[in-house]
Amino acid sequence: MAKIDIDALIEPVLEYLPNRTPDVWVDMALENQETILIDHATNELKAAQQAMTLMARNPLNMDIQNKMSRLAREELVHYEQVLKILKKRGITFRTMKASGYAYNMAKHIRPDNKGKLTDNLIIGSIIEARSCERFHKIAPSLDDELGQFYISLLKSESRHFKDYLTLAQKYSEENIQDRVEFFLKTEDESIMQPDPLLRLHSGVPTADYRV
Amino acid sequence: MAKIDIDALIEPVLEYLPNRTPDVWVDMALENQETILIDHATNELKAAQQAMTLMARNPLNMDIQNKMSRLAREELVHYEQVLKILKKRGITFRTMKASGYAYNMAKHIRPDNKGKLTDNLIIGSIIEARSCERFHKIAPSLDDELGQFYISLLKSESRHFKDYLTLAQKYSEENIQDRVEFFLKTEDESIMQPDPLLRLHSGVPTADYRV
Repeated sequence: MAKIDIDALIEPVLEYLPNRTPDVWVDMALENQETILIDHATNELKAAQQAMTLMARNPLNMDIQNKMSRLAREELVHYEQVLKILKKRGITFRTMKASGYAYNMAKHIRPDNKGKLTDNLIIGSIIEARSCERFHKIAPSLDDELGQFYISLLKSESRHFKDYLTLAQKYSEENIQDRVEFFLKTEDESIMQPDPLLRLHSGVPTADYRV
Repeated sequence: MAKIDIDALIEPVLEYLPNRTPDVWVDMALENQETILIDHATNELKAAQQAMTLMARNPLNMDIQNKMSRLAREELVHYEQVLKILKKRGITFRTMKASGYAYNMAKHIRPDNKGKLTDNLIIGSIIEARSCERFHKIAPSLDDELGQFYISLLKSESRHFKDYLTLAQKYSEENIQDRVEFFLKTEDESIMQPDPLLRLHSGVPTADYRV
């Protein structure tokens, strides 16, 4: 039963993304679980912050307010859950240099209000989809506690991916397909290119990668 | 039973604040419930944003991370609840000019990191306490739905007031009593002085007050 649910959740995500996480990223992530967990915590908080930024920028859009408020709360719950796992495992939280992943997309965000909203929502959908794909891919190789936690996240990440995409189309006057394809291509490059930094969202670790 | 609980919740709040909301504010708030409701929604969102600002500024303080993350989530739930009430009552959300209430305290925040954290936490405790006092004071004069909603908020606002104060003392190297008294005095002036703008947190409405 659980397996069927997971397949149904992951299918639209795998259909959306043009590629799969390279195995070498999975191998290095498994060797550096501490780094991945700390970065994961940071990412959950960033996702909540980004949702609240969209709320602040679009105060009169009640759809954005309601959807992003709930999304921010869910991301904060996940953040608290990761902090709890860190504490349980005796891992000290630290601030870390961010990977270029999000910036590589964010630098293409259009400056006008409508374009900015659409682009941010599309990027949100891609980041959520990628998280989903990576959690799904790495979960079977992790210990039970972490594996089950990552699987438990699939449900909300998969819903967030769809919510972002639905809102992006709803609040764009044009069809967003071209823009979605542009950002998917940008993301594809980040994921497939050599990356000297290992993070939850980073490219193919180079031989001398840092954590 | 409910009455005893409310009394127990409100007692420390009334002990903390040096004054009570003037009756003329209550009268004008009852005459302008739409304004108060919209401002209330805005304040819940601002409280969540402020909690997340404290998280962003103190990334390595796990106590701040955990407490403020939960607090932000609760404020967002309240925000969503007020938006739902607005919608049900056919009130269109709008952005409104802020009262000088929070700024009158915020302009005295010390610039150094430790002083900034302490002062922000103290101000947080005062704003939560004032919300609590006003909800408690106005609730009996409101319709059942709104009155019960405001009473339901007392529980978390009262806990937030204590959490802020506890954290303020915990992360200050000096006794915070003088600083608490300074900000309580500043707040007292805002609440007791004539105010041309009616808001959830504003002073004594002047004869020609605006909403």
